[in-house]
Parts: sequence; C-alpha cells; structure tokens
Amino acid sequence: MAEKTIFTKIINRELPAYIVAEDLEHIAFLDIAPIAKGHLLVLPKESGDDLFDIEDQRLGPLLQFTKKVAKAMKRALSCKRVGMMVVGMEIPHAHIHLIPINQEEEMDLHRPKLSLSTQEMEQVAIAIHKEII
Amino acid sequence: MAEKTIFTKIINRELPAYIVAEDLEHIAFLDIAPIAKGHLLVLPKESGDDLFDIEDQRLGPLLQFTKKVAKAMKRALSCKRVGMMVVGMEIPHAHIHLIPINQEEEMDLHRPKLSLSTQEMEQVAIAIHKEII
Repeated sequence: MAEKTIFTKIINRELPAYIVAEDLEHIAFLDIAPIAKGHLLVLPKESGDDLFDIEDQRLGPLLQFTKKVAKAMKRALSCKRVGMMVVGMEIPHAHIHLIPINQEEEMDLHRPKLSLSTQEMEQVAIAIHKEII
Repeated sequence: MAEKTIFTKIINRELPAYIVAEDLEHIAFLDIAPIAKGHLLVLPKESGDDLFDIEDQRLGPLLQFTKKVAKAMKRALSCKRVGMMVVGMEIPHAHIHLIPINQEEEMDLHRPKLSLSTQEMEQVAIAIHKEII
C-alpha cells in the first residue's frame, strides 16, 4: 500500500486538484507548480516510490494512459512535443511529468515556476480534458 | 519505416556503439555525450520521431525493456535512482534517456557533457550489461 502522500490525498479526493483524466488504475492532474501551462502529472493510483518497481503487466496500461493524456495535451495546447520525465525524488509515489514544449531547452524542471491564476489553471485543465478520447 | 538516422545505423551495426542490452524489438546503448557515467538511450528499433505515436500494444514491451535496463543500471552504478526523460527533438527516432542520479538536480540534460575515455565507456557498458537479467 502506498504511503499517504499528497498524491494519495488527491486520488482520495481529500485534497483538490485540477484533474484532467482518470480511469480505474491511473490519474492525471495539473502540477501545482508548473514550468509550462499544461504541465501535468500522470500516476498509477497504487504505487511505491520507484516507477521501475511497478510490476511488468501494469507498465503497458500506464504508458497507454500516459500516451492518451499526451495526445490530448498536444491537441489542446498546440505544442510541438509533449516531453516526459520521471525523477522520483520529490514525493514517494511514482509519477510522470508531462510537459508541453516547443524547444528542447524547455524540458527542464528547474525553470522558474509559473504563477497561474485559479481561472487559468481551470481553463487549461478543461481544455486538455475535452481532448481526451 | 524509420528515417535512416544515426540510431538506425547503430541498430544495423553500420555505426559502432556501446550496446548494453538488446532484444528483437529494442536496443539500449550509452549516450555518446553523457551527462553522467552510465547515461544511456533506450529505443524501439522501429519508430518514427514521436514516442507517443507508438502503437498501444508496443508500449508495454518498451517500458518493460526500459525497466530491465534501469534495474541493471541501479545495480551496476549504485545510484539512488534512474531518471527517465523523453524530449523528442534531437533525432527523429523515438528514444528514452535513462540517467543515473543521486539528487533531483542531476536530472538535467543541459549539464556539461562528460568526456569519458573509450576505456571508461567500455567499462561502464560492460558493468551495466553484466547486471541485465
């Protein structure tokens, strides 16, 4: 069982989040400290801290869900690419960063965080959610 | 069919590389401009330029192969984590960077590239290869 992190609380609806996609096993929501508008996190609901400890048979569904979200981001945000990054040191629950980028240099978690209003966060979450198919 | 990039030439053995793992559909070899000792690339042998254009049924095997290589890196290099990054703008053939890290800050492709000798590259490739199970 996963440690009760901020992510578990979001999954359990004990904390609010801008959720853009969800199925039985996975969830995607906006990163609260985004480096780009639409920067989001994809996670398996049940997980330890290391993505590479997830059982083989769960990896396909995880990456398929991630692809579905990335495709929706590309359509909603008209970015050139959606970059993917897993670092695994921030919060002990495996998660994948998806970041809309137009240049290679933008794929950098150490860029200044954006300050987006609640309204801007809502709008981008809805725009991506609408493109999930 | 993939464009004939430097990656296709490595897969076809027309260019040399420090290959650490290979199966019918995938290959992993050291990045020639590493940001850390053991930094490597995992790729599906057949691929266009966007990882998220890979068919759903091939995503599971790709991430399972990536996991196998990441586990071997962790054993060989005694790093705290193996970070994963996909940018997708450098070479038009989908590829995943695996980077051994001990701190979050090390997960940055813009760090200075290491100059490793042929011998050092060979040693680290062999050390990782030995841990593939």
